[in-house]
Amino acid sequence: MDSSMSVPGQVVTVGNSILVEGVLRRTWTGTKRVVELIVEKLLHVGAVDLKTYPLAKPQTSLPFLRDHLHLRPRFITIGSVARIRSSLTCACHAFFNDLGMIHVHMPIITSVATGSQSQRFQVTTLLDTSDQGHVDLEAFKAAVQEKRSRIKELRRGRNNKEALTAAKEDLEKSKELVRVLEERQKTATVYVGDVKLSEDFFGRAVYLSTSAGLHLESYACGLSGVYTIGPVFQADESRSAKKLAEMWMVEVELAFAELEDVMNCAEDLLRSLCYSLLATAGNDLKFAATNIDGDCIKRLQSITSRPFDRITYSNALHILNQVKDRSFLTQAVWGADLSEEHERYLADDYFENPVIVYEFPQEIKPFYARGNANGITVSAFEIIAPKVGVLARGSQKEERLDVIRKRIEEVGLPQEQFDWYMDLRKHGSVKRSGFSLEFEKMVMMATGITDAEDAIPFPRARGDAKL
Amino acid sequence: MDSSMSVPGQVVTVGNSILVEGVLRRTWTGTKRVVELIVEKLLHVGAVDLKTYPLAKPQTSLPFLRDHLHLRPRFITIGSVARIRSSLTCACHAFFNDLGMIHVHMPIITSVATGSQSQRFQVTTLLDTSDQGHVDLEAFKAAVQEKRSRIKELRRGRNNKEALTAAKEDLEKSKELVRVLEERQKTATVYVGDVKLSEDFFGRAVYLSTSAGLHLESYACGLSGVYTIGPVFQADESRSAKKLAEMWMVEVELAFAELEDVMNCAEDLLRSLCYSLLATAGNDLKFAATNIDGDCIKRLQSITSRPFDRITYSNALHILNQVKDRSFLTQAVWGADLSEEHERYLADDYFENPVIVYEFPQEIKPFYARGNANGITVSAFEIIAPKVGVLARGSQKEERLDVIRKRIEEVGLPQEQFDWYMDLRKHGSVKRSGFSLEFEKMVMMATGITDAEDAIPFPRARGDAKL
Repeated sequence: MDSSMSVPGQVVTVGNSILVEGVLRRTWTGTKRVVELIVEKLLHVGAVDLKTYPLAKPQTSLPFLRDHLHLRPRFITIGSVARIRSSLTCACHAFFNDLGMIHVHMPIITSVATGSQSQRFQVTTLLDTSDQGHVDLEAFKAAVQEKRSRIKELRRGRNNKEALTAAKEDLEKSKELVRVLEERQKTATVYVGDVKLSEDFFGRAVYLSTSAGLHLESYACGLSGVYTIGPVFQADESRSAKKLAEMWMVEVELAFAELEDVMNCAEDLLRSLCYSLLATAGNDLKFAATNIDGDCIKRLQSITSRPFDRITYSNALHILNQVKDRSFLTQAVWGADLSEEHERYLADDYFENPVIVYEFPQEIKPFYARGNANGITVSAFEIIAPKVGVLARGSQKEERLDVIRKRIEEVGLPQEQFDWYMDLRKHGSVKRSGFSLEFEKMVMMATGITDAEDAIPFPRARGDAKL
Repeated sequence: MDSSMSVPGQVVTVGNSILVEGVLRRTWTGTKRVVELIVEKLLHVGAVDLKTYPLAKPQTSLPFLRDHLHLRPRFITIGSVARIRSSLTCACHAFFNDLGMIHVHMPIITSVATGSQSQRFQVTTLLDTSDQGHVDLEAFKAAVQEKRSRIKELRRGRNNKEALTAAKEDLEKSKELVRVLEERQKTATVYVGDVKLSEDFFGRAVYLSTSAGLHLESYACGLSGVYTIGPVFQADESRSAKKLAEMWMVEVELAFAELEDVMNCAEDLLRSLCYSLLATAGNDLKFAATNIDGDCIKRLQSITSRPFDRITYSNALHILNQVKDRSFLTQAVWGADLSEEHERYLADDYFENPVIVYEFPQEIKPFYARGNANGITVSAFEIIAPKVGVLARGSQKEERLDVIRKRIEEVGLPQEQFDWYMDLRKHGSVKRSGFSLEFEKMVMMATGITDAEDAIPFPRARGDAKL
């Protein structure tokens, strides 16, 4: 690993890392001005073993790279996406900082029911699964693959029959081991008996947070405008290209704010993030435009160039039901969420820009969305964006004590778990509104990446938590 | 809640929120120039119910406020700490952004053993504890307290004997209910039988991350300088004023970097954060200096004014063993961690500034710290700071494949779980180094807050996960 090892030939193979000393020089390649590095000293070569290096093969598609999460940051697409993601994080903080808003870290582990009970991950120290002799099957499978490659190589050599026979026997043994382990793992159980919650680490059932919104309200009531960038979790059984079990979310809560204030804030944030990307991530956007999605720069420019249209949910249904030139799989009917094809039509085709939909039927929005005088709709909104659908959602919060009590009862949540939440209305209450923006979708809209698993460094989904 | 409700008397009680229209005017109070608000219109009053508002009482100490997490952001100390915490977050991003480093979101849920097995939280969907009729005992206890207050009040009134008798009976019933519930909860169990890991959400045992360090290395090998600000978790049974089960950590990894580079980076970060606080959080620091810790501004100024001393672990022991004017509870001996009193002596008394200690015995540092030629020490360091002890720790990473394999074996970790980590050394390896900085300790050092539970919005500790 020192300079004595450095053979120029090594440097050119894929995947090597090098450290060199030299001179940068502007020069011409034909009619194009380029920068050239004249290497004077090769200080370090971190070579790759081309026989076992997975990314040396030509099939480096994004799905293929998902099986090599630890190596994929070396791939230029993943690197570009990571830099754009990083720019977005910094741009978020800059935006809120300029507004004098306070960043607060919200809890990851919580006992508060912030979402559907069935879709929560429980956090516990009661299951002792460490001494069950659990083995990493994937490692053994990889070993089988490696042994297969070795046999192929030996065959090519043709001069070592003994080694080949030995290698074949070795392979058979490993394959048998994998078979046995697979069988054992299918039926592996860990006996835990009865779980005493009082003996769990926190002495009660706790879960991974599904949203920081409720907790954030308590800080808005103290510090006015607050926001957080943090992970949220959803144990959703369905697996789709846009669903992750672990996502990052920008969440915002403003005191003394009504629906319109918070729609303005969400639109300003989105526009500001796009401005910032165009200004600071030009090279990576150009790469994305060439290699992932030709429209990505145009999309960001469109967002920065004109205000978003704002329509009520009723109007959205009206637009969708007027469509003559295509048919939707499902009809848009009052009281149902817009489907993905409806969202795509509105944002990608009809408005060709993000569109804000507001005034939703009460039954499809959370209990805390403020009820309107008509008794039917609530002061909630969504920003539906091209390519990704619902990018942000929010609402004015129900601040009337009697109304929110009734709503909690209606949706069947345990009243006594929300006493603290009632306190925020009982004592020194203010009108307040908030929204959340899905960070992975923002990355996807900016880059044109179509699977959320490529928009986050280490994706987690049903049945899949590599590394 | 509209302006017609507004009675001037209401406005002056503690805890009310108000929205007013008026004119700001500079004026004089005695010899002091102040700003005065002439209210012309009272637009909103969010009154408090003084009988039930917990913060209306005089005993608003920090420990008392911990029982009212949702209301404590209204308390000026908690507000100041939150603003300083927010400034630190933004200053971190600014520091790394200026260096061209990339922020990456690291996984919260992971199957990788990044720390001690026994201190990990497991994440699961296998325990269905939702339909066990679990009740929030705390809510019922609070109701008992409320009923007690009501009786006191009725006694003061002296003119409603019937109501008093009824209230007393009501109280007795509630107390009995709490007794029954407490008994039931002590023995409450949830039957889960045998846990099939293959049926768990991810099809395997997964845990909350105890450190982002290993994952971060994979990004450093692709993108060079990377950092993350994220939560880490430790199921530590001991409960102390500086230990949280859920903490936030700044973690950094630099490619092509040795121990000295990363010590420089950590020192620069710390100094930059202090500069930034002094420049942007003056009012909150003045409040902290007056109300929490008179030395806090002086401490920050000292950090910005001179380089940190750097001593080896051996030298640290030498200094400690030379101390004549006091005796330590434990002696500082080779091979043991420095104790809290040793750390406090070095940083608070001897150097009166953060001090960097480096070259630690191998046995007290993680397996990935790079071994030195002497075979005894590793290239690791700690920044020990006044008031909080170890604020940051890091090391050059062992990049030699054979050495790290041997270390993993020596410490008894499952070799097959680290194949991916070996890959980072097998393919295009580089020298690399990293460190982590404990965010809550940074907040504590800056403000003088002595309990980590007051440095984070919603603290989690053994037996305690409120809200």
